[in-house]
Amino acid sequence: MFPHNDMITSRDNPTVKHLRKLLDSKKERNAAGAFVLEGKRLVLDAFNSKADIDRVFITCAAMGKLGDELGDIISNCNVTVISDEIGTHISDTENTQGIFAECRIPAGMDKMPRLKSKGRYVVLSKLRDPGNAGMVIRTADALGLDGVILSESCDVYNPKTVRATMGAIFRVPVYHDIMTDDIFEGIAAAGLSSLAAVVDKDAMDIRNYDLSGGAAIFIGNEANGLDQDVKDRCTHRITIRMQGNAESLNAAMASGILMWELVR
Amino acid sequence: MFPHNDMITSRDNPTVKHLRKLLDSKKERNAAGAFVLEGKRLVLDAFNSKADIDRVFITCAAMGKLGDELGDIISNCNVTVISDEIGTHISDTENTQGIFAECRIPAGMDKMPRLKSKGRYVVLSKLRDPGNAGMVIRTADALGLDGVILSESCDVYNPKTVRATMGAIFRVPVYHDIMTDDIFEGIAAAGLSSLAAVVDKDAMDIRNYDLSGGAAIFIGNEANGLDQDVKDRCTHRITIRMQGNAESLNAAMASGILMWELVR
Repeated sequence: MFPHNDMITSRDNPTVKHLRKLLDSKKERNAAGAFVLEGKRLVLDAFNSKADIDRVFITCAAMGKLGDELGDIISNCNVTVISDEIGTHISDTENTQGIFAECRIPAGMDKMPRLKSKGRYVVLSKLRDPGNAGMVIRTADALGLDGVILSESCDVYNPKTVRATMGAIFRVPVYHDIMTDDIFEGIAAAGLSSLAAVVDKDAMDIRNYDLSGGAAIFIGNEANGLDQDVKDRCTHRITIRMQGNAESLNAAMASGILMWELVR
Repeated sequence: MFPHNDMITSRDNPTVKHLRKLLDSKKERNAAGAFVLEGKRLVLDAFNSKADIDRVFITCAAMGKLGDELGDIISNCNVTVISDEIGTHISDTENTQGIFAECRIPAGMDKMPRLKSKGRYVVLSKLRDPGNAGMVIRTADALGLDGVILSESCDVYNPKTVRATMGAIFRVPVYHDIMTDDIFEGIAAAGLSSLAAVVDKDAMDIRNYDLSGGAAIFIGNEANGLDQDVKDRCTHRITIRMQGNAESLNAAMASGILMWELVR
């Protein structure tokens, strides 16, 4: 099964151009229905989580160094060897590990799901930073939330987001590009509360809110918070009451503390 | 008062070399007792927090764009104009805002302080990532902790750490390069508990621990957690009990949730 192709050594190779496009552009990812993973841990996580891997690309150097650890992948996936120089060219990082995988974007995750009764969800509304989105997804996985829903936010399959999830993207359901109307409809249908996270002393202290019936917590944009329209449609406004400098809490950290309260 | 110097246009200018060294090397920062801030918000935060600013450097482009916002700084600090090209050369970021400040490292923060009775502290032991350290400092400021103590961790005055604190470094006490022995002595002298944060189902659930008497929570290295020696010396081992994939919680996020429990 391996190596079933000649080594790729040219930047002009159509596959190399294709991979770079998938890394650079959401439009290209959506058109192809695919995205690219980089790094040993992510590729292993994808494989172990039975993600739909089209093909694995690995540099000569990485083959020498990681061959043993990647035995299952090499036996079970389509593997193409690339030159070290092409690995560096494709890479989205400064020091590439020289291993990449092209994966299918999971089908149906761009549609609002039927939410669980008493489910626990976080909704990211206009969140812009891929590092923050990735950290929220990673924390949702750690804390055992039922799902993360993204609306008008950065792209989940952006390489920076994928990397920041540390593989959590393969373990926790992540719904993306969901319309605000559909989100509120789905929350209401499941009988859940919708909680707008705000920095506001008059909002309800999250510690005093009974979260045992599940909820969807809405987190807004890093700079501007939630849109007024979204806040108005939520059933409650909640906040993290604190004694320090409230403006200091970053969006991902605030999400983490609120998710912790949700599962606490 | 301004401009009191000719514009700096050469990379060979000794001041330019000095600034680059302060950005690049902890050794140089310690020898000079100074560090460099970059960006409008950080420089304004430093000024408003009465940090000890030696000199402000600003590019021509930034002077045109930010002059109005920086009025107080321009009137009250030593300001040197630099060419846009030198701004890009000095910068630690991809798109510089063109404003920098050389500040004094606060004196005495490399000595173990007398801790407050019932105080609430976080101790970072061998934490390596400047982004994580900065986020912990930022969250400690937001939640109103009494201080952050670093031991054998990344440098607080590394530009990446400073940037990640988003100015919190000027608002919350941050003690750095403290010996482990001194930390445990100071904690004992203040009558505080020392809590080792671990990923271990047998450790005490943080929710069940009475934190009303204050505590110092120890956070370890991103990859390896706390050293066995540090765990052994702590009075308790605590954990964040969770239903998901516990390995997924990043060090900064775990610190944030534990600090939240400390002030909750």
